[in-house]
Amino acid sequence: MDKLFYLVPVLGVLGLLYTFVKFNWVVKQDAGSDRMKEISNYIAEGAMAFLKAEWKILGYFVVIVAILLGVMAQANPHSHWSISIAFILGAVFSATAGYIGMRIATKSNVRTAQAAKTSLSKALSVSFTGGSVMGLGVAGLAVLGLGSVFIILYLHFVSGITPATPEYNLAMVKAIEILTGFSLGAESIALFARVGGGIYTKAADVGADLVGKVEAGIPEDDPRNPATIADNVGDNVGDVAGMGADLFGSYVATVLATMVLGQETISVDNFGGMAPILLPMLIAAVGIIFSIVGTWFVKVSDKAGINTDTVQKALNMGNWGSIILTALASIGLVYYILPETMSLRGHEFTKWGVLGAIAVGLVVGALMSIITEFYTAMGKRPVLSIIRQSSTGHATNVIGGLAVGMESTFLPILVLAGGIWGSHEFAGLYGVAIAAAGMMATTAMQLAIDAFGPIADNAGGIAEMCELPKEVREKTDVLDAVGNTTAATGKGFAIASAALTALALFAAFVGVAGIDGIDIYNAKVLAALFVGGMIPFIFSSLAIRAVGEAAMSMVEEVRRQFRTIPGIMEGTGKPEYDKCVAISTEASIKKMMLPGAIAIISPLIIGFLAGPEALGGFLAGATVCGVLMGMFQNNAGGAWDNAKKSFEKGVEINGEMFYKKSEPHKASVTGDTVGDPFKDTSGPSMNILIKLMSIVSLVIAPTLAEIYNTKTGQATIEKKQPTEQVITTSTSQVIP
Amino acid sequence: MDKLFYLVPVLGVLGLLYTFVKFNWVVKQDAGSDRMKEISNYIAEGAMAFLKAEWKILGYFVVIVAILLGVMAQANPHSHWSISIAFILGAVFSATAGYIGMRIATKSNVRTAQAAKTSLSKALSVSFTGGSVMGLGVAGLAVLGLGSVFIILYLHFVSGITPATPEYNLAMVKAIEILTGFSLGAESIALFARVGGGIYTKAADVGADLVGKVEAGIPEDDPRNPATIADNVGDNVGDVAGMGADLFGSYVATVLATMVLGQETISVDNFGGMAPILLPMLIAAVGIIFSIVGTWFVKVSDKAGINTDTVQKALNMGNWGSIILTALASIGLVYYILPETMSLRGHEFTKWGVLGAIAVGLVVGALMSIITEFYTAMGKRPVLSIIRQSSTGHATNVIGGLAVGMESTFLPILVLAGGIWGSHEFAGLYGVAIAAAGMMATTAMQLAIDAFGPIADNAGGIAEMCELPKEVREKTDVLDAVGNTTAATGKGFAIASAALTALALFAAFVGVAGIDGIDIYNAKVLAALFVGGMIPFIFSSLAIRAVGEAAMSMVEEVRRQFRTIPGIMEGTGKPEYDKCVAISTEASIKKMMLPGAIAIISPLIIGFLAGPEALGGFLAGATVCGVLMGMFQNNAGGAWDNAKKSFEKGVEINGEMFYKKSEPHKASVTGDTVGDPFKDTSGPSMNILIKLMSIVSLVIAPTLAEIYNTKTGQATIEKKQPTEQVITTSTSQVIP
Repeated sequence: MDKLFYLVPVLGVLGLLYTFVKFNWVVKQDAGSDRMKEISNYIAEGAMAFLKAEWKILGYFVVIVAILLGVMAQANPHSHWSISIAFILGAVFSATAGYIGMRIATKSNVRTAQAAKTSLSKALSVSFTGGSVMGLGVAGLAVLGLGSVFIILYLHFVSGITPATPEYNLAMVKAIEILTGFSLGAESIALFARVGGGIYTKAADVGADLVGKVEAGIPEDDPRNPATIADNVGDNVGDVAGMGADLFGSYVATVLATMVLGQETISVDNFGGMAPILLPMLIAAVGIIFSIVGTWFVKVSDKAGINTDTVQKALNMGNWGSIILTALASIGLVYYILPETMSLRGHEFTKWGVLGAIAVGLVVGALMSIITEFYTAMGKRPVLSIIRQSSTGHATNVIGGLAVGMESTFLPILVLAGGIWGSHEFAGLYGVAIAAAGMMATTAMQLAIDAFGPIADNAGGIAEMCELPKEVREKTDVLDAVGNTTAATGKGFAIASAALTALALFAAFVGVAGIDGIDIYNAKVLAALFVGGMIPFIFSSLAIRAVGEAAMSMVEEVRRQFRTIPGIMEGTGKPEYDKCVAISTEASIKKMMLPGAIAIISPLIIGFLAGPEALGGFLAGATVCGVLMGMFQNNAGGAWDNAKKSFEKGVEINGEMFYKKSEPHKASVTGDTVGDPFKDTSGPSMNILIKLMSIVSLVIAPTLAEIYNTKTGQATIEKKQPTEQVITTSTSQVIP
Repeated sequence: MDKLFYLVPVLGVLGLLYTFVKFNWVVKQDAGSDRMKEISNYIAEGAMAFLKAEWKILGYFVVIVAILLGVMAQANPHSHWSISIAFILGAVFSATAGYIGMRIATKSNVRTAQAAKTSLSKALSVSFTGGSVMGLGVAGLAVLGLGSVFIILYLHFVSGITPATPEYNLAMVKAIEILTGFSLGAESIALFARVGGGIYTKAADVGADLVGKVEAGIPEDDPRNPATIADNVGDNVGDVAGMGADLFGSYVATVLATMVLGQETISVDNFGGMAPILLPMLIAAVGIIFSIVGTWFVKVSDKAGINTDTVQKALNMGNWGSIILTALASIGLVYYILPETMSLRGHEFTKWGVLGAIAVGLVVGALMSIITEFYTAMGKRPVLSIIRQSSTGHATNVIGGLAVGMESTFLPILVLAGGIWGSHEFAGLYGVAIAAAGMMATTAMQLAIDAFGPIADNAGGIAEMCELPKEVREKTDVLDAVGNTTAATGKGFAIASAALTALALFAAFVGVAGIDGIDIYNAKVLAALFVGGMIPFIFSSLAIRAVGEAAMSMVEEVRRQFRTIPGIMEGTGKPEYDKCVAISTEASIKKMMLPGAIAIISPLIIGFLAGPEALGGFLAGATVCGVLMGMFQNNAGGAWDNAKKSFEKGVEINGEMFYKKSEPHKASVTGDTVGDPFKDTSGPSMNILIKLMSIVSLVIAPTLAEIYNTKTGQATIEKKQPTEQVITTSTSQVIP
């Protein structure tokens, strides 16, 4: 094994070291007054309470699935019981990624509020450092985990076998198949974290408002309200931990998908034919270095005015800096590692084609962000149309938002379709996968930019609760506003990369399952296409309904505390924040079980009952509808949100000015509330859903190949040599 | 040509004769007082004004497309310029179907109101006869048109050539290809009629309310409001004419799809190998007889109480009577006409398999109706959940409805997928097509049941405007309530049959385009799958936004009339109903052009730019998402509507009773308004959209085959003989 492979986990460790150093830097910052520390402690305790409850329930899930996986793998010559260990590792790493995010977010929020007393520059520094701790933690864990598990698997299963023999290929298939377990663990925890977090944050939000503001008549964010802390915890749980686990899973899935296709690629190189496997890992690993470099660009001058443009510009500098540096490094890596030509399933491509595909991925990512911003930003045509339609009432506001959301699928789908076609033209299926890997290379930076928003948001809440001077809130508001934009564009980016990743996984599935193709014209495939397309609809239905029902549980718990704790309204009795948090946690985790189960079990049912080709149709249907429903819901929700926010500064409709508390504003609040579960619960789950179903399919592919007696993965094992010698191997050949 | 073929147009004429006789019977009924006649005349004039405006604009469209079709066909040996004539005939027949519906509906509404003075039995008799005039008119025109055009084409192109020779097969391909033009004409008019009518009816509804009720303070349905007539016209335009054209197009498309696949089927029978072509036409033709018989069962006793159950039972009797009789007749037809075994593209099936497929179609149709009713009916879990969620405001009501709509795709999709798989198991692709044809056989009866609802609804409006006794309104309300249920189940039925038809057309496209299959695993196909899936989203977005914008145009026109016509508010000046109707008509027709154009042009772009296999992927994506979006929107709209209606009788939420004008009721009105464009504009257009795109693709298939140099339709021309002799023919062979 080439030494370059060892560079991958080393760079992962580098990312984690950076995380450790910067975490300590944040902790050393001033956490403000005792009051501020108290409030932020409540939030941190609540967040921990959520994690514990989540881990307890997911622990059972992980153990059961690990046992099932081990049993299934044991019965199959192309897998191995150790896939269950890989699965557990993936789940643990994913949970750790969420934990790091939660820890740093609950440390930085209060310190950002304190820093905002000094200057915008200082506040940005603290909140963005908090974001980058999470970003590099997630990326570092992913690169370390994937890299070291691969190396261990290689050393154990493959090392010592002569390269380019059937035995070697068979062993490589097995190693990669086991690695898929790592991704399965990561992605399934991601789904539960995203859905559970999404339900939690919106349920706590609505629940706290309904009892506190409406029934008890106390202000928003009042510490006497037992659900207030849950509400603030929700921001950390949904927007920080959920997103961290989500991006950890995505990052791993994308690199893995490229590795699976890379394993199938015929390449005569200096790495024993393993250059196409090494490339995505190395790109991800150097992405860590340049994400760290990128963070150095994110600075605003102490003399800069307090406005969003300065902050946005600083973030853009960091983002584009890391993207351009990583792209340049990728050119070097491709040039140095890859041979002139390779081929995958009969499709020849060159190293320059691979570079072209990476470029396509970067362009798709950039266009997605721009288009998403257009559809959700204040002052642009879509949001303005919703504002105008708010003047005629709640219903027209809702209709307007739904129309915007549906319309917003048009350009992104054309870009995505162009990206699929273009990356495939450049480098075949490997091109589609590496395009996604290129997009995801600077995940650390993306996540830093995404995570600083909720930190600033929380800082603003703490400032409000502790009655800090108005200037503090002004500065955190500027950071929060920029965070809203980056959150929306981040979602556009996430869905595009998920689509490409799902397709790469889909292509990998075809290879491992040993089928020639997936003909829609086949009645079974067609029927499965419909069933697959329906999954995102039923999943969304369950998720958005769960928000409503979980909010009701929260309402009941708060009412109980108001009734039974003496002195709670006078501020002398301490509300049981943890109970409220636990209730909300349990309700949300309970409600997330069914959608999660659907995502995991439905591919099993289709696969085992109708065979691998039908499962391919199922995945295609689910991917198409999942991408569309994700875009529709995310963008409708984002547009409604900003339409409502526009009323804060006042909007002009037919020559008349309208502000907060006007009738059109009330209509816009309805739209925003409808949009909440869209954009924070079901919408962002779509990208995990489609990837998770593809990974589940990939994991069961060798078993399906056995049962359905297809070519039993021969497509991947009979890697043809460039000399066109066909090496056949009996499927019963098992490595001793 | 066997004489049995001539039976098809003869039975079509029988249907039209019944239409003529019953039309005259309705006209002879008492139209009531002068006031009632005046009001109904306004409505009839308005409806005519819409038709004229629509025809004028669609006239240009038809002429341009006909020329383009003729030119394209002329350049292709597998088509003929006369396809443009077939196209024009299809369009004219479809328009005529809409015209008949409009005429009878505007005659029966006032006569139903008058009849309701006597008894429920009499009112049902008039309104249902009105519906059946439309139903049999539509079915008669379809069977007559399709049957006679086919006979003419056969006599001109095929007659005299020895059966089972390559020349014969080539000539048959040409004849069927030209017949596709008829279906294209019918379906494109259907799309415009449905979308235009849908925009019209909702725009007029909202426009009339906003200016009349809110601004001028006059009651609903007040004749001083120039938009009132437009509102009532809207019901006829959307629910009657739009639906008539829709079902005419569906009926033709379904039979045609079966004929195309029947032409490809290898059958040694007594009809020169044409039994599989003859069967769907004959089933449709006998469906007319048994629909007429079915109408005789729809009667309630003069002594029966005034309640919905009696009426529903009478309709069910008629519906099931005609279905069972047609099913029995189908057994006879299949037994008599079909040979023991046939084969299509290498898939062998028996006559018993064909019967099984028809049975699958009937079961799918029945289950769809039952499930749709569950999701939209009052008193069932879904509607009750929306009612409960109305208690916490507008937003939760909307969320509840959206969740119900999304959830409502679950069971229907499983049924549909089962239907696809089942009918294919029984008789291959021909089975899928004949299942749809079986479902559609009693279209005349279905349409009679669907159309009587809006007639009763209009009758109620006239009763209100003319201040007829309360008992009249009571009876029309009973009929209207039953009509609401039948409308919802009709939509479930329509989307299921459309899905099966689209699949059959899709299969026919594969044959004519000469491709082996459509592999999703191909990057181009996959990209096209995404683009296809996006079409129903952008189409829905345009349609629901159009409703909002057209309503604004209406508002402005009504304001102008109130300002400029002297004495209008005193009742001495006559409002210019026709101008209002024309404005609304033009606005709605203008707004329907873009969605209509997308449906027609997008398959052309994909087909000519990316080739037939990509177009196949495009169609699959559009069909899956179209079916899902159709179900989602129809059922969400239906459920919201009935949630609102439940408040009229009072609903219990958490032990408290709520009635009209309560806060929860207001929230339910918001949901209903959001649902209006869902269930009456974009939702019901989905089934036409998916069929129209398939037909457009089928029409251009021979040209694509030429350009992309596929096997140039050989799959269909090289019909293998049962003896396994392969007869090959050069594609340059053209019949002299």
